[in-house]
Amino acid sequence: MQSLRVALGERSYAIHIGSGLMGHAALYAPHLAASAAIVTDEIVGPLYLEKVRRALSPLRATEIIVAAGEESKSWQTLNEVFDRLLAARHGRDTLLVALGGGVVGDLAGFAAAVYQRGIPFIQVPTTLLAQVDSSVGGKTAINHPRGKNMVGAFHQPRAVIADMAALDTLPERELRAGLAEVIKHGLALDGVFTSWLEANMEKLVSRDHAALAYAVQRSCELKAAIVAADERESGERALLNFGHTFGHAIEAAAGYGAWLHGEAVAAGMVMAAELSRTANGLPQADVERVRALVRRAGLPVKGPAVEPQRLIELMATDKKAAQGSVRFVLLKSIGKAVLPTSADAAQVRQAIVAAAQ
Amino acid sequence: MQSLRVALGERSYAIHIGSGLMGHAALYAPHLAASAAIVTDEIVGPLYLEKVRRALSPLRATEIIVAAGEESKSWQTLNEVFDRLLAARHGRDTLLVALGGGVVGDLAGFAAAVYQRGIPFIQVPTTLLAQVDSSVGGKTAINHPRGKNMVGAFHQPRAVIADMAALDTLPERELRAGLAEVIKHGLALDGVFTSWLEANMEKLVSRDHAALAYAVQRSCELKAAIVAADERESGERALLNFGHTFGHAIEAAAGYGAWLHGEAVAAGMVMAAELSRTANGLPQADVERVRALVRRAGLPVKGPAVEPQRLIELMATDKKAAQGSVRFVLLKSIGKAVLPTSADAAQVRQAIVAAAQ
Repeated sequence: MQSLRVALGERSYAIHIGSGLMGHAALYAPHLAASAAIVTDEIVGPLYLEKVRRALSPLRATEIIVAAGEESKSWQTLNEVFDRLLAARHGRDTLLVALGGGVVGDLAGFAAAVYQRGIPFIQVPTTLLAQVDSSVGGKTAINHPRGKNMVGAFHQPRAVIADMAALDTLPERELRAGLAEVIKHGLALDGVFTSWLEANMEKLVSRDHAALAYAVQRSCELKAAIVAADERESGERALLNFGHTFGHAIEAAAGYGAWLHGEAVAAGMVMAAELSRTANGLPQADVERVRALVRRAGLPVKGPAVEPQRLIELMATDKKAAQGSVRFVLLKSIGKAVLPTSADAAQVRQAIVAAAQ
Repeated sequence: MQSLRVALGERSYAIHIGSGLMGHAALYAPHLAASAAIVTDEIVGPLYLEKVRRALSPLRATEIIVAAGEESKSWQTLNEVFDRLLAARHGRDTLLVALGGGVVGDLAGFAAAVYQRGIPFIQVPTTLLAQVDSSVGGKTAINHPRGKNMVGAFHQPRAVIADMAALDTLPERELRAGLAEVIKHGLALDGVFTSWLEANMEKLVSRDHAALAYAVQRSCELKAAIVAADERESGERALLNFGHTFGHAIEAAAGYGAWLHGEAVAAGMVMAAELSRTANGLPQADVERVRALVRRAGLPVKGPAVEPQRLIELMATDKKAAQGSVRFVLLKSIGKAVLPTSADAAQVRQAIVAAAQ
């Protein structure tokens, strides 16, 4: 087991990474309260709820099982969580455990942020994406009919327990989508880690626990270093958006839900690498390294079958809402992204076309 | 104008206290963002919204008017606020202004706490209770069908603008209920301030702006000193609950809404003073000072017409939920409360009876 500390002053916490961890009572022990509540979903619950409940015993633990999927990031589901907590008379001295992927983490994390003005929570992420992404940063939220993640809070967990064994049951496509974010951390922030990924991609895809544990650990380290310096998201944290300007447009163009977020980011990273070549002098050989790595992870290297103009329009619309110009996180070299810059429209189009070659 | 600083590190803010302040653009100027939204209610809006809107100009300001009353501290109303903010495309760089009493402050403050994971807000409290109570502490919340203030956040305002002119239109009964919390601050924390209140009660009741401004200032100073040392509410902050154990039972016994919170706290303080005499050696003369001060503020000195046993049962029920014993903040002397202690049931009954004499 590796334990890594996210340094955020009095809100610092540990991320424990290893195989079979979610059943280890000792990892929960330092954070036990008067009672506990476990929030999970209908897919993860049957697989792992009993294991976590046993690790928390003899603490009284209320089990709250929500529907799987993005629809659970809603007022309705959040209110159901509060209703269950209040019906079971949970006070402020309740430890909430979020057992599941990103949806459960966001929902339960936000519930913990505002239930009785805030209770402690532990994250047990069961998808690779949640392990490398939502484990660090303290972002919690629900959706509003008018926009995703429009209502939420920054609420840091007391601990994160990232169990590689949970990934054994993860659908193939979701594993690969999680690898997109791992690759992003390498490409944007760490050339040495990128080389390691190139050397170990087959192990990752075949779910070798040791390889996955290292990939999660290094991803979390890289993200934690940035978040520690920029908890409320202003400067450096933007580097984590490498591939995301294109990625968001791809998700929208394909119709939300058709592409997984990680799949869209994967193709977006290839486009961003192409744009880095023309706009930022990234060598062609490095663009090819990006493309090859994405491909070996089984992820798409080009966007959906729409006109480049459509993606460009979607990016512009996205930014019009934010009253700014379209900006891209580009690579200076492999492992070194630079803060967002505007780009020439012709170059953006060219990058989209080049990625599709 | 007096300006008082609430010292909370990087979340420190100023409370400006004076007459005619809510129209002063200079008080909002340091906190202006890309746009603004003003949340108020149907009673306060027609009186003061235009004044605040002008002070914010030329900033674009969305006006959000909710129904007056406790029912607006609901999911439904909160969601309407989000809906209005999103429809008007307010991003994170939006200043939210809460213009109204405690309900508007709690609702709008919580909206600010979680809209897009947190936006800045300014409080313009228009009731005496909101000026002396919710101005300090950063508590925001909405109600849940199963309990009051069950969902919320600690979210400090960027500034509080307490305008004594707003109190000119406050119903008499609400003014007096606000005075109960002012008296509480004196009795629990400051003997000199209590003497000042004894010398100036007639001025306060007749809404002398200078006297009200001093009462608000001293109340906020006393509360701020405690909150600064105890932002998340553990130890010292309990002293602010003087009169509240009895008060909550009185509110419940009378039927929620029949007594204003301040009225219940007023009678609760007399009971707590009587209990302080038998359980804590408070001189009889000091008990009479408490009773006289409460009476001169036009507030009730005894509870509703129910058996003492009923109040005792209600206090026990309240605490059974919190899995503790019934505890009381008592006075050691005028201006000096001590941390909550259990009390003998016979003495509690005697205190209720004595208050009613």
